[in-house]
Amino acid sequence: MSQLPPVMERYRAEIGAELRSVLDGRHSPVYDMMRYHLGWIDADGNCQTGSTGKALRPTLCLLACGAVGGDCRQALPAAAAVELVHNYSLIHDDIQDDDRERRHRPTVWAVWGKPQAINAGTAMRVLTNIALLRLGDRGVTLEKQSRVHHILDEASLRLIEGQYLDISYESRFDIAIGDYLSMVEGKTAALIAGALEIGALLGTDDEPTIAVFRDIGWNLGLAFQIRDDVLGIWGDRNETGKPPGSDIRRRKKTLPIVYALNESKDGLKEELVGIYRNGMLDDVAVGTVLGILDAVEARANAQRLIEWYSSQAERAIYTLSLEPSAGHDLKEMVNFLTERSF
Amino acid sequence: MSQLPPVMERYRAEIGAELRSVLDGRHSPVYDMMRYHLGWIDADGNCQTGSTGKALRPTLCLLACGAVGGDCRQALPAAAAVELVHNYSLIHDDIQDDDRERRHRPTVWAVWGKPQAINAGTAMRVLTNIALLRLGDRGVTLEKQSRVHHILDEASLRLIEGQYLDISYESRFDIAIGDYLSMVEGKTAALIAGALEIGALLGTDDEPTIAVFRDIGWNLGLAFQIRDDVLGIWGDRNETGKPPGSDIRRRKKTLPIVYALNESKDGLKEELVGIYRNGMLDDVAVGTVLGILDAVEARANAQRLIEWYSSQAERAIYTLSLEPSAGHDLKEMVNFLTERSF
Repeated sequence: MSQLPPVMERYRAEIGAELRSVLDGRHSPVYDMMRYHLGWIDADGNCQTGSTGKALRPTLCLLACGAVGGDCRQALPAAAAVELVHNYSLIHDDIQDDDRERRHRPTVWAVWGKPQAINAGTAMRVLTNIALLRLGDRGVTLEKQSRVHHILDEASLRLIEGQYLDISYESRFDIAIGDYLSMVEGKTAALIAGALEIGALLGTDDEPTIAVFRDIGWNLGLAFQIRDDVLGIWGDRNETGKPPGSDIRRRKKTLPIVYALNESKDGLKEELVGIYRNGMLDDVAVGTVLGILDAVEARANAQRLIEWYSSQAERAIYTLSLEPSAGHDLKEMVNFLTERSF
Repeated sequence: MSQLPPVMERYRAEIGAELRSVLDGRHSPVYDMMRYHLGWIDADGNCQTGSTGKALRPTLCLLACGAVGGDCRQALPAAAAVELVHNYSLIHDDIQDDDRERRHRPTVWAVWGKPQAINAGTAMRVLTNIALLRLGDRGVTLEKQSRVHHILDEASLRLIEGQYLDISYESRFDIAIGDYLSMVEGKTAALIAGALEIGALLGTDDEPTIAVFRDIGWNLGLAFQIRDDVLGIWGDRNETGKPPGSDIRRRKKTLPIVYALNESKDGLKEELVGIYRNGMLDDVAVGTVLGILDAVEARANAQRLIEWYSSQAERAIYTLSLEPSAGHDLKEMVNFLTERSF
């Protein structure tokens, strides 16, 4: 099993402590659903460890703050808020996609039902606002607090707009690559860009630098999502924990499928549409889809796009005059996120 | 058909314009779902009028601001934000309760499906934050903006906690009056109290005055909800637009039912529980429930509670040294909300 790079571990404890303190003293079962989703307790309320996420977005936020010479402790409330936005969206996403399992555990709705899981997700989004209030205690000016709020709110709206497109594509087969990218910019890149922009904003007043971090985030977000799409089809079960072709079985319109819908010829497109429209997707059908993806070289195409966006992100990093160690950390993140096998 | 009192109409146009401007320039279909819910367009996107709500909460917010000598235009962004919180909660509530109709139109989920309706509701909650940003343009200090945010966020969390309880009570028959009140404090009173507190805060710096407005809101909120419960069972179809006993048919655990569960004797409680557990609620069953409610004088009891809470609200109004016209407006609101027939 692959390991996370050291830079992904650096702030894990602080991020976890900040997140826990946001929920401290809140006793309604609504917050227990959140604690369960975050992997702190099991469904009966017993303490638990080991099933939290990678904390990718808050780590990016803190790295950006540190890279421009800021004090990461000041940015911790914002990093926690970003992680809450991501996790609220996962709770709702699981409801919307009817997914019963995440991180090898039943999803919130699978335990408490969809009506209560809607409550848990929306309340977590509101807690994001509460998390940001702590920026004031860390000496962040009211002006910057207000800007952080605005960046995170607009990123949240983009995220939902992307989620809207994702759901609307379920019944469509005329999706162009540009449609796919619009969806992914909202669903994935907006929050990653917001995390980096907020981190930079809390570390510096230099507007061009802040804009470069946002730009890194857009490109990194796209590369990250397309890598995710590749892993969802060709990932190693031992690494991803998912069976091969898992996104095909779930009929997701990820990039390789969208590419094949646009590029496949000689009746292959009709065959692909037929399989995706079909009620049951057995191993034979998955095999056929994999064959169509091979025929159009969908994997190599996805890889080219990943490399394009990650090179754009790296190029943006080079334009910044960072300490060598900070530049190295950011490049390590880009490499990990776009080359990871899990 | 009864009329709204003039004070309920006073700010309607300004509130509507402020709400529309929050959504201006936002083109994703996510916002069209909101515009539909708010009654501005039909499901095909054509302009429409006539099915908006009463705008009760923003009206209370603006009345409070004006009553303490503030400038209502300054409070408009907050009034709009309060209305957005209320309406996001209705969109989610309809999903959670499986309700296909609201204000004589199909609910958002009945038109677009539950996954997209979840998106519309959560995005509307995020737009609340965006609406509040405009307080800065109206000359409200950053400190007060931050406080308004905090009051509205805590009210939102209370609202969701109340919604959690409401859903959790669906499968329970051991609900005490105190449990019911906890649920209603969250689900209804918290946002009404927040609306009045925010309005007062934006009009004055006098903390005791602000606290009295919050107190008015808690009492008014409880009286308002219990009146709603009474109308949900004994309301006139011509006034409410709902068939008699409509909340009984929907098996809601409103106050009269909770009261009967606690007070009914001689096997009537078992009969009531049996009917509520039953799959189908026909006219005969509704009639039996109405009989049980009569036997324990559930309506008179609810009326006593309404009068108690509305008298507490009126008493709080008297403790304020308001202009006579402002005191009159607030009393008119309390009277309407607790005596209304629709």
